[in-house]
Amino acid sequence: MDYRTAFLAKPGAPFRLADCDAGFHNAFSSRSEAQPEIDAQLKRMGNLQEKLYAERRHSLLIVLQGIDAAGKDGVCWHVLKGMGPQGCHVHAFKVPSDEEKAHDFLWRIHPHTPALGSVAVFNRSHYEAVLVERVHDLVPEQVWKHRYETINDFERGLELSGTTILKFFLFISKDEQLKRFGDRLDDPDRHWKISESDYTERARWDDYMAAYDDMIGRCSTEHAPWYVIPSNHKWFRDLAISQIIANTLQDMDLRPPEPNVDIAAIRKLYAAEVAKAKKDK
Amino acid sequence: MDYRTAFLAKPGAPFRLADCDAGFHNAFSSRSEAQPEIDAQLKRMGNLQEKLYAERRHSLLIVLQGIDAAGKDGVCWHVLKGMGPQGCHVHAFKVPSDEEKAHDFLWRIHPHTPALGSVAVFNRSHYEAVLVERVHDLVPEQVWKHRYETINDFERGLELSGTTILKFFLFISKDEQLKRFGDRLDDPDRHWKISESDYTERARWDDYMAAYDDMIGRCSTEHAPWYVIPSNHKWFRDLAISQIIANTLQDMDLRPPEPNVDIAAIRKLYAAEVAKAKKDK
Repeated sequence: MDYRTAFLAKPGAPFRLADCDAGFHNAFSSRSEAQPEIDAQLKRMGNLQEKLYAERRHSLLIVLQGIDAAGKDGVCWHVLKGMGPQGCHVHAFKVPSDEEKAHDFLWRIHPHTPALGSVAVFNRSHYEAVLVERVHDLVPEQVWKHRYETINDFERGLELSGTTILKFFLFISKDEQLKRFGDRLDDPDRHWKISESDYTERARWDDYMAAYDDMIGRCSTEHAPWYVIPSNHKWFRDLAISQIIANTLQDMDLRPPEPNVDIAAIRKLYAAEVAKAKKDK
Repeated sequence: MDYRTAFLAKPGAPFRLADCDAGFHNAFSSRSEAQPEIDAQLKRMGNLQEKLYAERRHSLLIVLQGIDAAGKDGVCWHVLKGMGPQGCHVHAFKVPSDEEKAHDFLWRIHPHTPALGSVAVFNRSHYEAVLVERVHDLVPEQVWKHRYETINDFERGLELSGTTILKFFLFISKDEQLKRFGDRLDDPDRHWKISESDYTERARWDDYMAAYDDMIGRCSTEHAPWYVIPSNHKWFRDLAISQIIANTLQDMDLRPPEPNVDIAAIRKLYAAEVAKAKKDK
């Protein structure tokens, strides 16, 4: 199954999370069954990233969004670890600083977009400007309702400069979120991850779902599609995302760059050095 | 063998690469023999990095230097891949831009030092200011000879702010460099890596060795030691570096941070949510 087709939010169409199944796991029934396929996709992805880095003609921007406990950090640790940190930069966007708030909402985002040859990963992103800022009324509707268009224009500009954009929405059910909150409580090593806002935000679940629907419906474009990843099963989420990234890199038809030098001339320099090394012995 | 002891350049003592064996490989005789140990060290390193990231009380700066083809990129791809890109940032310092040249030599370096919880890797570094700039007379001796002290002071300041510093000098022999240049010529996929300067720089081999001796002798300090890694065998280099990084992280005694919330109060919130979820069904 090509997950790019299966999980694409159709550009230009309204979108409803209510129609999606967060628990989908294709024909696999467990992590152990899926693991060989996950490993294969991660390896493919890593090898292709090395080519992207060498070629320096394309770049890749990966955007991760999802409600609390949806697995954004998990994707960074378990999927993106398949990429070398040379050429893969993860940026976690937190609550904006006072300086950042004094600028337009893309000001703090733009410096982190990927250079040619690189992969940038946004753990949360510019989309917070139409999510938390909308749900908490941090800005009036008159402001946030224009941001979808601003975002589409921004992403279009990146795409025209050689950046491929993949946006993953990690979709978990409300029950699954609660289960994960419980798991954290059961594990003292993860108590530091717990915050009271986990619960106050959960109380706004429906508001977030409405904001996600709009975000995905309005900003899934031909040049920067949203993929809605069933994420109740962490292993299926990892499989789907690694396959989509690997397929996307594969389609770039990455090739080693042309040499900058006359290889025949270099062969002569090399031969002279070999002769010199022999003589010195 | 603890490679931190074996390959440490003794702080405060003069240093001579001529006394080191670039071909050393301990009791291992091949990559396949060493691979299980390399894999084990990489896994240890990766697990400890996750703890470093969670804890956010320490940071780690890894500096990589070595002559052309010594394997700086190889370490980034094969060793540092053991770390998750969430919290590990590699920065490759290239020829300074005009703007960078208009500032003191640490101006372009400082923004890339690691935040608490993070690992920063410098592929080349501030040490170029006492290497290429010295060897090519880009700055007068009156300028570069004071830089060792400036560097030691800078690194001391980082260490006082919670940054552990590991500096790896990848040492290959002159014969091994030539062999690697030949390997690149034999592999069309790597022709783009070849530059004429490979050969013009090689002609200054002895000048570089003198510059390295001074750099290591003057800047291996208690707070930021240089490790001179025998690197003729790529697999031994990877083994030594991964073990040194893992041992260093281990010694930090990393612990999960204290929770920011009253866990008992959160358990009540959780129980209320579970009850509500049951009622809603």
